[in-house]
Amino acid sequence: MNKTVTLAMGNGGEENNQLIKKVFYKAFKNDILEKSEDAAILELNQKNIAMSTDSFTVSPIFFPGSDIGKLSICGTCNDLAMMGAKPKYLTVSFVIEEGFLMDDLEKIAKSMEKELEINSTLVVSGDTKVMPKGTVDKIIINTTGIGEVLQNDISSNAISKDDVILVSRDIGSHGAAIFASREGIELESELKSDCTSLFPVVKALLDEGLKITALRDATRGGVSAVLNEWAKQSNVCIEAYEEKIPVSDEVKGICEILGFEPTALANEGTFLIAVNKSKIEQTIKILKRFNKNCSYIADITDKYIGKVVLHNSWGTKRFLESPTGELLPRIC
Amino acid sequence: MNKTVTLAMGNGGEENNQLIKKVFYKAFKNDILEKSEDAAILELNQKNIAMSTDSFTVSPIFFPGSDIGKLSICGTCNDLAMMGAKPKYLTVSFVIEEGFLMDDLEKIAKSMEKELEINSTLVVSGDTKVMPKGTVDKIIINTTGIGEVLQNDISSNAISKDDVILVSRDIGSHGAAIFASREGIELESELKSDCTSLFPVVKALLDEGLKITALRDATRGGVSAVLNEWAKQSNVCIEAYEEKIPVSDEVKGICEILGFEPTALANEGTFLIAVNKSKIEQTIKILKRFNKNCSYIADITDKYIGKVVLHNSWGTKRFLESPTGELLPRIC
Repeated sequence: MNKTVTLAMGNGGEENNQLIKKVFYKAFKNDILEKSEDAAILELNQKNIAMSTDSFTVSPIFFPGSDIGKLSICGTCNDLAMMGAKPKYLTVSFVIEEGFLMDDLEKIAKSMEKELEINSTLVVSGDTKVMPKGTVDKIIINTTGIGEVLQNDISSNAISKDDVILVSRDIGSHGAAIFASREGIELESELKSDCTSLFPVVKALLDEGLKITALRDATRGGVSAVLNEWAKQSNVCIEAYEEKIPVSDEVKGICEILGFEPTALANEGTFLIAVNKSKIEQTIKILKRFNKNCSYIADITDKYIGKVVLHNSWGTKRFLESPTGELLPRIC
Repeated sequence: MNKTVTLAMGNGGEENNQLIKKVFYKAFKNDILEKSEDAAILELNQKNIAMSTDSFTVSPIFFPGSDIGKLSICGTCNDLAMMGAKPKYLTVSFVIEEGFLMDDLEKIAKSMEKELEINSTLVVSGDTKVMPKGTVDKIIINTTGIGEVLQNDISSNAISKDDVILVSRDIGSHGAAIFASREGIELESELKSDCTSLFPVVKALLDEGLKITALRDATRGGVSAVLNEWAKQSNVCIEAYEEKIPVSDEVKGICEILGFEPTALANEGTFLIAVNKSKIEQTIKILKRFNKNCSYIADITDKYIGKVVLHNSWGTKRFLESPTGELLPRIC
């Protein structure tokens, strides 16, 4: 392993996993941590509680479609929602650079307030640290949340050949929007981050009695990272169809500039869902209420266990790997 | 209010309270947050749960007697313990500067591991972000914890004339140690941070059936900040006796160099406890098992409501105010 921490170790992909396994899991080893996905599942007074944490370091702090405040609430609430949990209580911890504009801080707090309402979630405790100018870039926000699990057994380990995978909307717009805004690229059409709270759509799925096999928002590492993790953890082969994966023209444009694949770009309000084959239509019907670009994108087979195969429209196929290196630091 | 965030707004004293009230409480307003002290108290499945968060930005990251890893576990576990709760589950979120030494990261993880054991607490979920070199100074660690409340109704609002206040050990050594280490001051005798986990002593107090009125570790803002908050929140006058407040010679020496009062220096393993007058001896007996320098330091009267009076050994007295300005940034 490297002698120093590299940017790639924060990418949500391979190097990130290595750092977590070799340093943190070694020190913090326990059964709950090992089973934890986007959130940990705890038994507390005979009920299952989800718990998740995230520190947000995104740059710029205001970006097309959202800001660090909204992102910090969506991010943690979404991690809870992805475990089938209703976000209930959050803590918020601010680390602020000396000289930060009070107006900006108020704007950030206001976006957080609005997003808390969407999740019907309360901030119950907080912390504020101010660091001398030059020792931290602007602001870092940590949010940690607990939620009540509404459907148990949603798990990356549970996917079988009876399941299919759907995506909730077109992919990659958060990564593309951050990149465009950082580089001052002006696009004719509107490119906005997908940053949004996912509990409402998860609630709609559960309210209709849909049994969800696995659920994951495709944040750092994008759709590729999630599909690869699922293939490995469930010991299956995921066969995805490139033409079925929705990508907007704006995101395609940014990908051409960057030389990236849309499947490697981060999202902040886009998720993958694995459900039984028989539930494709029902799932699409519910997802459509929230975004018309939702799509059934992959089947499960046993062809290449632990691998993701991407079929393109010309009938050829290739392995889709988990992203390595650091595409875009400070994306979230 | 200032147009920008100042260092003083992170001092744990007056300016910090102003920022919290004017920006954060306005956005996040709710009953639980308003009642929350070191930790929030939540009802979850018919039981009281404490929840608390803290981001640690201390500099230097290794200092006499401790390091940022140990501090990050003690800090949050102590906040839970101070609400009469047994720390149960923690999340940990690392924000690391690119180029940070892997050896140092492993050392930090090891200190965390050791301290988790002392608290019989598990890390159940985590997050790692890496920021480009120069955008954050070395490392910031957020820990957020939940705990089961063992004694309800411990509260800063509950102190009455029937109570007295005791301190668990000599004060100010964390602040003094950080300052000495930052400035490279070599002292003949050993000056070490008091950084330690307080759940064991809280457990001992509760195991003996002691009814605790209020409990608070004297972190940022030191003993002055806690006494002033208690006087205001309980609507009482706290009359403290300077000669009874234990201060080591090393801390006195640093205070002379700095021109600070020991009561304004931060602690990370020193707490104040309010108990009924009739329980002084019992409390001292238990506290002594952990530190022989514990001391009964103040009475409660109604002389100057909301104020803290400090009596000195020459028979004169003065008001002890909550610290203002920023004494030492990045103390925790």
